[in-house]
Amino acid sequence: MREKILAESGAKPGDLIRIRKKGEEFVGILMPAHDFSGDDIVVIKLNNGYNIGIEVDDETKIEILERGELVKRRVQKEIPYDPKKPTISILGTGGTIASYVDYRTGAVHPAYSAEDLAYSVPEIFDICNVKARVVFQLLSENIKVDNWITLAKEIAKEFNENKVKGVVIPHGTDTMSYTSAALSFMLKNLPGPVVLVGAQRSSDRPSSDAYQNLYHASLVASRSDIGEVVVVMHGETSDTYALIHRGTKVRKMHTSRRDAFKSINSEPIGRVENNRIIIEGDYRRAKEGKVVVDAKICDDVALVYFYPGMKPEEIPERRGIVLMGTGLGHVSSDLIPRLKELIDKGSTIVMTSQCLYGRVNLNVYSTGRDLIKIGIIPAGDMLPEVAYVKLMWVLGHAKDRDEIKNLFLKNVSGELSQRTLLHYH
Amino acid sequence: MREKILAESGAKPGDLIRIRKKGEEFVGILMPAHDFSGDDIVVIKLNNGYNIGIEVDDETKIEILERGELVKRRVQKEIPYDPKKPTISILGTGGTIASYVDYRTGAVHPAYSAEDLAYSVPEIFDICNVKARVVFQLLSENIKVDNWITLAKEIAKEFNENKVKGVVIPHGTDTMSYTSAALSFMLKNLPGPVVLVGAQRSSDRPSSDAYQNLYHASLVASRSDIGEVVVVMHGETSDTYALIHRGTKVRKMHTSRRDAFKSINSEPIGRVENNRIIIEGDYRRAKEGKVVVDAKICDDVALVYFYPGMKPEEIPERRGIVLMGTGLGHVSSDLIPRLKELIDKGSTIVMTSQCLYGRVNLNVYSTGRDLIKIGIIPAGDMLPEVAYVKLMWVLGHAKDRDEIKNLFLKNVSGELSQRTLLHYH
Repeated sequence: MREKILAESGAKPGDLIRIRKKGEEFVGILMPAHDFSGDDIVVIKLNNGYNIGIEVDDETKIEILERGELVKRRVQKEIPYDPKKPTISILGTGGTIASYVDYRTGAVHPAYSAEDLAYSVPEIFDICNVKARVVFQLLSENIKVDNWITLAKEIAKEFNENKVKGVVIPHGTDTMSYTSAALSFMLKNLPGPVVLVGAQRSSDRPSSDAYQNLYHASLVASRSDIGEVVVVMHGETSDTYALIHRGTKVRKMHTSRRDAFKSINSEPIGRVENNRIIIEGDYRRAKEGKVVVDAKICDDVALVYFYPGMKPEEIPERRGIVLMGTGLGHVSSDLIPRLKELIDKGSTIVMTSQCLYGRVNLNVYSTGRDLIKIGIIPAGDMLPEVAYVKLMWVLGHAKDRDEIKNLFLKNVSGELSQRTLLHYH
Repeated sequence: MREKILAESGAKPGDLIRIRKKGEEFVGILMPAHDFSGDDIVVIKLNNGYNIGIEVDDETKIEILERGELVKRRVQKEIPYDPKKPTISILGTGGTIASYVDYRTGAVHPAYSAEDLAYSVPEIFDICNVKARVVFQLLSENIKVDNWITLAKEIAKEFNENKVKGVVIPHGTDTMSYTSAALSFMLKNLPGPVVLVGAQRSSDRPSSDAYQNLYHASLVASRSDIGEVVVVMHGETSDTYALIHRGTKVRKMHTSRRDAFKSINSEPIGRVENNRIIIEGDYRRAKEGKVVVDAKICDDVALVYFYPGMKPEEIPERRGIVLMGTGLGHVSSDLIPRLKELIDKGSTIVMTSQCLYGRVNLNVYSTGRDLIKIGIIPAGDMLPEVAYVKLMWVLGHAKDRDEIKNLFLKNVSGELSQRTLLHYH
């Protein structure tokens, strides 16, 4: 629809246009179409510098007021370095939040620079100095194991060479919790917070959460003494506060809401409210010295969701397999011979629950006891996605069966709690 | 531990024994070991007729007070049929809840008869007459498509031949929502409620929810004018009320809590509190006439969970495939050629979200638009498990591509809502 209506009007990016739609009227400079916008959204830059996305339909009229050309806008003034403020690094990886800076500057391809950021979220410079650069540009569904390793090394560089106080990682929300878990296992002796942050709504929507999330993440990175990988996102749908989730205990639980991220089987570490960081749970404090990257990974691991009717051959032969069973950790009995065959061939198989909340227990029912007998390892209250990442990491570190089991069942980075939490919605 | 300590004491089922453990003392008749009890649990029948499970350890002492023999206890009095009360059927299928009747009667193998029930939950006879029988005895992780069809036919028989007011299906909780979805699609023109009910704690635990859930389910089956398949389970962890969930909108969200079942992307139909049924949402009312079983199913369908690192060959070749993508419904771009290949060969592929809450939308990002281009069908706000069951049912009813898509995107049994719900925890 956008393509059609723009072609009819003859408007080109850079032109000053007027859009009339159901009695409403918008005037601004037409911005280029963007991978992140819907097919029916026309984005214009208003006179106040903000971009808005307008949904167009057959009834919408577009009129060219003045021809123009799009130039990448730059903030005129230099961002001053303030030696009294802490310095953080922002390492871009792509995703919806990347389109934030993008739209406000008018660039089609997202880019992070201190200047871009200053133009889009200048409040961040009130609290810290910023070094910003792009590590990679990916929609998060395309992020792979290699990207986790690259990111871990780049984060280490920021702490060890650039001596920053903390690192902010803007990231697509789809697989953010896989990345946060991977970084949690890979980064040892963190001298400051590593804060993953995303946006559920891109900046071409009035309801975008990109701005506030990036600000809150920068606050946590620059002012807290957390020495863990955390995820900072909206705590509720309105702009009241953000939650600080442990990187190994968080999951995206809604397709679109701004408060989609929830701590599962754990309370959040804390919250950010009224410019203050309020710590509410245990956390690992920042350490002295250098961060160590421990990224030995075996990526020959599969994550497999059980369902009634699943066929034995659907369980692939891999060095590691994480099952998402039903309830306390069950699969149908007719899959057990296949699982035993794989274990006999050398696979490590762990059991998690598709319930997500709670913990697996293979001692209660006969099916569970049969699974224990063939050597399946129960993953406690670990999230399936976290168990998947952890098993890759464990298989990169341990070789024989007992060593693998012991390391998998050891709490490495807050992923495994012994205590069962009463809190559950 | 049970086997060891019982062997040491010489106690046999039927013996009157005393168990001493950490200053506590229990006297009762030793019950047989049961598939549903843990390895460390000894079950005794107390003098008041109730069974309890006691966890034994090395410190526990067991003493035989009197040798005895276990006989299946029967309620002496006949259960009177009251023509003024509605009659319901209880169709046993196995699961934890089955062990309830089991333990209270002292039988090792679960059995449903009106007498068993009267002995265990006599309050049910205050509200209705009961016909009870066993359809099959399975842990729910072993229930298959054929069992759904058997059950649908047996339910129809109860309504059409035995003219019951409603049917209660005690069922294992692990796959209860798959079965409730399957019955929702298969049973048309229901003249009364079909109520699935389970227990999260077996009756050998003091915290068992079997009793109250069965009572609440019987209340809904005998007194409501609902003409749908519903799930009735604890609404919160204490015994205050039960929730009535739509059979196509419910999911087990906790491994062990009594309030594990949640309505997702929908409010519950209502609740049962203080012996009253309180309707809070829309529902389909019971119809006149006979129930029709429409169980044409194609079981050549797979449910596939996407994760970073998934390999194209892990997506099996089937007539139907339900993907659980990330976020709004995404998979990594390197899987798209494989999906296209499968669609070209004739597979129907639908997209759901592993977020569970919310609805898929393939129009927002480029990955989603690529998926639409190759013919992937977005499943709206349908739960992945429900989409899996529905696709089997749709492929049993429709042949060509458009017909399949249209039927899949039509709301058949409350599984697909147009309106997005604000409520979300």
